[in-house]
Amino acid sequence: MISTVINQELSIEYPIFQGGMAWVADASLASAVSNAGGLGLIAAMNSNGEQLRAEIKKCKEMTDKPFGVNIMLMSPFADEVADVVIEEGIKVVTTGAGNPGKYMEKWLEAGIKVIPVVPSTALARRMEKLGAFAVIAEGGESGGHVGELTTMALVPQVVDAVNIPVIAAGGIADGRQVAACFMLGAVGVQVGTRFLVANECTIAQEYKDKILKAKDIDTVVTGKRLGHPVRCLKSSYTREYTKAEYNSSVVSDEELEAMGAGVLRLAAREGDVKNGCVLAGQVASMVTKEEPCRDIILDLFTEAEKVLGGASKWVK
Amino acid sequence: MISTVINQELSIEYPIFQGGMAWVADASLASAVSNAGGLGLIAAMNSNGEQLRAEIKKCKEMTDKPFGVNIMLMSPFADEVADVVIEEGIKVVTTGAGNPGKYMEKWLEAGIKVIPVVPSTALARRMEKLGAFAVIAEGGESGGHVGELTTMALVPQVVDAVNIPVIAAGGIADGRQVAACFMLGAVGVQVGTRFLVANECTIAQEYKDKILKAKDIDTVVTGKRLGHPVRCLKSSYTREYTKAEYNSSVVSDEELEAMGAGVLRLAAREGDVKNGCVLAGQVASMVTKEEPCRDIILDLFTEAEKVLGGASKWVK
Repeated sequence: MISTVINQELSIEYPIFQGGMAWVADASLASAVSNAGGLGLIAAMNSNGEQLRAEIKKCKEMTDKPFGVNIMLMSPFADEVADVVIEEGIKVVTTGAGNPGKYMEKWLEAGIKVIPVVPSTALARRMEKLGAFAVIAEGGESGGHVGELTTMALVPQVVDAVNIPVIAAGGIADGRQVAACFMLGAVGVQVGTRFLVANECTIAQEYKDKILKAKDIDTVVTGKRLGHPVRCLKSSYTREYTKAEYNSSVVSDEELEAMGAGVLRLAAREGDVKNGCVLAGQVASMVTKEEPCRDIILDLFTEAEKVLGGASKWVK
Repeated sequence: MISTVINQELSIEYPIFQGGMAWVADASLASAVSNAGGLGLIAAMNSNGEQLRAEIKKCKEMTDKPFGVNIMLMSPFADEVADVVIEEGIKVVTTGAGNPGKYMEKWLEAGIKVIPVVPSTALARRMEKLGAFAVIAEGGESGGHVGELTTMALVPQVVDAVNIPVIAAGGIADGRQVAACFMLGAVGVQVGTRFLVANECTIAQEYKDKILKAKDIDTVVTGKRLGHPVRCLKSSYTREYTKAEYNSSVVSDEELEAMGAGVLRLAAREGDVKNGCVLAGQVASMVTKEEPCRDIILDLFTEAEKVLGGASKWVK
């Protein structure tokens, strides 16, 4: 089976992370992914310190395998959750939406492996200098907050830029894509969208149904004008938003910002997928089945092993 | 060496196409790529019928290897160039920016292999039904006119959607990316940006220099508001354009359209890379050396063979 520095050093079975999706990645999903042989991640984005601590404690009751926490650096609670992960003995922290520099020293002292999500070679290099164990090079085909560079373009450039392991994210929903990421030089993958419809994922059924029905051209990026683009499924909400986005002299940045507030929670937790925002990657259309996390991981790696094993068939 | 249905059926040495880049892909570049073992393509976009005929005749003098013509279906000259390729005995036609349906019957009767560029599974299926020999699944990380789906997300979905060969395009500048595309199910690649700096490419040196100096985050997509997005390198031109694009109640669609007229020719042919538009893919930052087409193709496939040959090292 596939084995790299990632699963070996993190004491997990397969080199796969579950994306730290806000309003999605709770103890239920994270523990299920960890029990299934990957690295589950609790998203700290929408939690204050004590809420995160409660979720971590819950997760510890649901699995004895390693799991991590994803910290969104823009969060107003970033300072307190940065301490909670230390106090709770979390071994892996992934970070998004910014530079985790101010927390690195204490995390490293606590023995935490820090693995930042990076959208560019410059940030990857900075993270390596600060002591990151690895980086997650995330392409803009992923769901949620996205960078401009795609997985195909970004991963090999990050691999060349740093000497630490690189995990690929964005556009990965089957074993062919896992194998492709290995060809690009990655030694692990992070998967988000496919785990949205895992049995153990607690989001609203309406959200899952929208993923299951998505076609290949159904995602759109909103929020570029404000400098924080987000990929989601097209809906009446995104049509309204896009119209407003292109009308900067009528709809101010503040008004546009307000249009984005609370819309993910509305879709993920209340199931309002019309007025809410259904974050998803471009591979939503490849996700067609609800199943346990274990089946998802086995399917990904069984196919990847087969594809990688047969790679030399092209070379005559 | 790597060998697939693409090089075998088209009687070329390597399964690689040079992108049919407007104002770039002339007889000089196309013949050089064909002489180097790939499939060179003349871009018909900016030519009327007689101009294209002259370029084809010139190319025939420069190579005795097969080469093709790329027809941009939005061109006002599409009808006449569609006949010229038949009259000149061209064996491969690639198409972009639309549905080549109205020309398919006469092209197929003339024995031409038609290979449309597709940004989605729906268009891929339609092209297969019309008799396309193969499709080029082009991800949005490519330069010039782009679709939304990235190579990583698009290629396997197109592979699953059709029973004809799939060529991958977008984000391919080195052998790792060629290998990754094969993992995704492609049996050939199309490369654009890297050929921009080929010795045999006749564009202005200023354009080449801008490619050679590009960083990973230097491309931007303009034109989304008008429904025909284009990827290019950031410049004072793109900054002005983007500002106008987000201001729909002040800058009309017609005015925005006018801002895009002639800007590619200005950059590619006159070397004005400040007021002109330098089309390029996200991998521009991986292109760091001017060299002959033959060296580019050998480098791509030597590395791809090595990477594919070693793929099974991950599987323990």
